[in-house]
Amino acid sequence: MHIAILTFDAFNELDSMIALGILNRIKRQDWRVTLSSPSRTVTSMNGVTVHAQSTLADACEADVVLVGSGMKTRDIASDQNLLCQLKFDPGRQLIGAQCSGTLLLAKLGLLAQVPACTDLITKPWVVEAGVEVLNQPFFARGNVATAGGCLSSQYLAAWVIAKTEGEDAALSALHYVAPVGEKDDYVARAMNNVRPYL
Amino acid sequence: MHIAILTFDAFNELDSMIALGILNRIKRQDWRVTLSSPSRTVTSMNGVTVHAQSTLADACEADVVLVGSGMKTRDIASDQNLLCQLKFDPGRQLIGAQCSGTLLLAKLGLLAQVPACTDLITKPWVVEAGVEVLNQPFFARGNVATAGGCLSSQYLAAWVIAKTEGEDAALSALHYVAPVGEKDDYVARAMNNVRPYL
Repeated sequence: MHIAILTFDAFNELDSMIALGILNRIKRQDWRVTLSSPSRTVTSMNGVTVHAQSTLADACEADVVLVGSGMKTRDIASDQNLLCQLKFDPGRQLIGAQCSGTLLLAKLGLLAQVPACTDLITKPWVVEAGVEVLNQPFFARGNVATAGGCLSSQYLAAWVIAKTEGEDAALSALHYVAPVGEKDDYVARAMNNVRPYL
Repeated sequence: MHIAILTFDAFNELDSMIALGILNRIKRQDWRVTLSSPSRTVTSMNGVTVHAQSTLADACEADVVLVGSGMKTRDIASDQNLLCQLKFDPGRQLIGAQCSGTLLLAKLGLLAQVPACTDLITKPWVVEAGVEVLNQPFFARGNVATAGGCLSSQYLAAWVIAKTEGEDAALSALHYVAPVGEKDDYVARAMNNVRPYL
């Protein structure tokens, strides 16, 4: 199982890293979570440089693709050279997007007739791309999911785990990362957001 | 204002990056948030390599130091050569720790007579170091704060912002990162955790 988290220059650290951390709670030997980038390193919106762990071509072959968010998504979404490297297929992949990543899914034609979640800043651009934007943190239809608001990346990760490893595995991963003294509340709220789409 | 987030090899991505992302919501020109590491690059517990943005010596001079968490904190906490490089002073700095970072504060003598928060795995080691561990996500006394459970790093960041820039700035930063449709709940809960210690 390879889960590729698309991470571009000017990426939002929370959106890529929360999903990566939670998804790595699954300790199966064939479970692999990577940051996928178009270059060997990318630098976040706040100046943090990270090393890519897989290429965009690898992401096209992955079992799961999550599109992270960032300050340059509008540029990426209008870069035909880059877009044509992103060949994702909900017939064989789980596909998710976080915040401005939703705009990329819209431009790739993966949200036709599917309402979506995104952050408040990206919302007008997603609407402009012809997608209905919901006032909720998470939505999925079939194999395509979207989340809005950085900390809703925990819901996207939980959805991936629940869809592939089952609900108990998602509960356990969420429990680990939740604040001490608030774990039951956090897990319950996350699963309330995700369960309708399993 | 320099906020240094201590980040060692085998670091937990959520613990360093959630705080970094939220703290960077403050857009003052003299506001600087950096990952501080003992080497030029460090690699996370899940294989993500990041570039350090400041040194441990820089962290000793910072206005705020947050000690991140990771899988090697017990080794670090028994490495006298490394510990003696960490000269922190709550008289002139805000000092916070996340999860296993609390063990480091304990070893540095910064939690004498101060109860603390940490994650469930680190808890026995912090108790062994003579510190009372609380079953809650956040606690602070004066200029020293601790948080337990990866996602409680939002509370540590909110405490730093509220202490330095005021409560409204903390509310605004939390609102930005909270899930769409749950923002008021998230902000209220975070401030309920932090406000008693301001």
